[in-house]
Amino acid sequence: MKPADPARLSLNTITTKKWTLAQAIEGCARHGIRGITVWRDRLQEMGVSAAVQSIKAHGLAVTGLCRGGMFPAPDAVGRKAAIDDNLRAIEEAQALGASCLILVVGGLPAGSKDIAGAREQVRDGIAAILPHAKAAKVPLAIEPLHPMQAADRACINTLGQALDVCDLLDPGKTGALGVAVDVYHVWWDPQLEAQIARAGKARLLAHHICDWLVPTKDLAFDRGMMGDGIIDLPRIRALVEGAGYAGYSEVEIFSEPDWWQRDPDQVLRIMKERYATCC
Amino acid sequence: MKPADPARLSLNTITTKKWTLAQAIEGCARHGIRGITVWRDRLQEMGVSAAVQSIKAHGLAVTGLCRGGMFPAPDAVGRKAAIDDNLRAIEEAQALGASCLILVVGGLPAGSKDIAGAREQVRDGIAAILPHAKAAKVPLAIEPLHPMQAADRACINTLGQALDVCDLLDPGKTGALGVAVDVYHVWWDPQLEAQIARAGKARLLAHHICDWLVPTKDLAFDRGMMGDGIIDLPRIRALVEGAGYAGYSEVEIFSEPDWWQRDPDQVLRIMKERYATCC
Repeated sequence: MKPADPARLSLNTITTKKWTLAQAIEGCARHGIRGITVWRDRLQEMGVSAAVQSIKAHGLAVTGLCRGGMFPAPDAVGRKAAIDDNLRAIEEAQALGASCLILVVGGLPAGSKDIAGAREQVRDGIAAILPHAKAAKVPLAIEPLHPMQAADRACINTLGQALDVCDLLDPGKTGALGVAVDVYHVWWDPQLEAQIARAGKARLLAHHICDWLVPTKDLAFDRGMMGDGIIDLPRIRALVEGAGYAGYSEVEIFSEPDWWQRDPDQVLRIMKERYATCC
Repeated sequence: MKPADPARLSLNTITTKKWTLAQAIEGCARHGIRGITVWRDRLQEMGVSAAVQSIKAHGLAVTGLCRGGMFPAPDAVGRKAAIDDNLRAIEEAQALGASCLILVVGGLPAGSKDIAGAREQVRDGIAAILPHAKAAKVPLAIEPLHPMQAADRACINTLGQALDVCDLLDPGKTGALGVAVDVYHVWWDPQLEAQIARAGKARLLAHHICDWLVPTKDLAFDRGMMGDGIIDLPRIRALVEGAGYAGYSEVEIFSEPDWWQRDPDQVLRIMKERYATCC
């Protein structure tokens, strides 16, 4: 297997939560990290034009915008508001030249126990925004989230399920709709190999890395640095690259007790080392 | 849909963790609960003969023994020890007249990142004990655990995956090998309906109920009482009963912060109410 290519390492800015977007852009440049995935709250804070200018000045690739999605809502007003917000996200992703807009699709609407219904709302929401995304040339990346987040964050929970939505809404595999393969969400899936192969180059829009800690102490905010857990990262990278993915590997670590507490420059140094040795 | 039948309610003794097995047996009888699923540590504590005698005297059905499984190990000695322990569990289940032995199959061996290998070890372990289980007339129920427990407790994580193992090792659907459908582990699965139908009467050996809380604060010990969470319990019961399951619904609640702290008599009262109204 080919070693991980340092030129394809990307920082998801949630990993360095202490930093503003301006600091994260400068940090990537300082550490020779060439890709960055941006969160929208930090983008608003900095301003889109300033962010575009700084990212360009520092020669970074924008490997994604986090995030669109969150489609299900208890009523039509809420669903319309979600779609409007996704349209704004598409505009922002276009302005940044992001390689995709990440969709965290949303969980059950408040008070609902109808996961099948939530999944229909997600499908309808993506269908509503897809023409706009195509026109803006912003690929939409459905990110299946770990089943432990099915109720509150995303009711699309396997790659197979995400690809079913892709095949329904974009049967021609135009490149406008695909998936984000985050190892944290999918490492356990007995169908992982088959579904990555099914996705192929046309649907593989992002590859997110981190690690699964044993024990894991929180359902959302206790991810590990690559090498500190039990995910076979080289195997999953080999699968996505074997299926044709030629983009970045993006480090996305939600870690309240550990990595969010550290000096972000240390985090970037360690993630570069680990990327070279464990991924 | 038919209302839940109070005669088919069962207590998994972990739900009343404060109680000894003797107390749990008496508690079930006192509250008119007719089924009980027993944990092995409590069984050892009471003694198998005494437990058999008391369960019989109180007229309870033993709806399961928890648990066999835990097959993967770093070496052959460890795997042999696991199999020996499973054979003892089969003997205990036989002595109790349990309707099945629950298999929590085990996660990754210490130091391993090879989940495919762990899954092979599980398959080999079940294959090794199946003839003994058949001879003892103790059906083995593979319980797929939620993917959040894949690393540390069970690397079989979907009903589909469990049924693949059943079909491989017991292609004749003899009744010797099947699955336990615990709503907590499977509620999120987009293939739930199809896989319950696939299981059918021959493979559906147990139905465990509780609820998924939002938010969930621990990956193992924060389950909710039926009605307190977001699982559509009547729908899942309709699916298993529609597929031919005619056994008990067993309440299994791991709850460090809440239900384990309460008076077990209160827990039994509430679970009976909720079974009548929410399930």
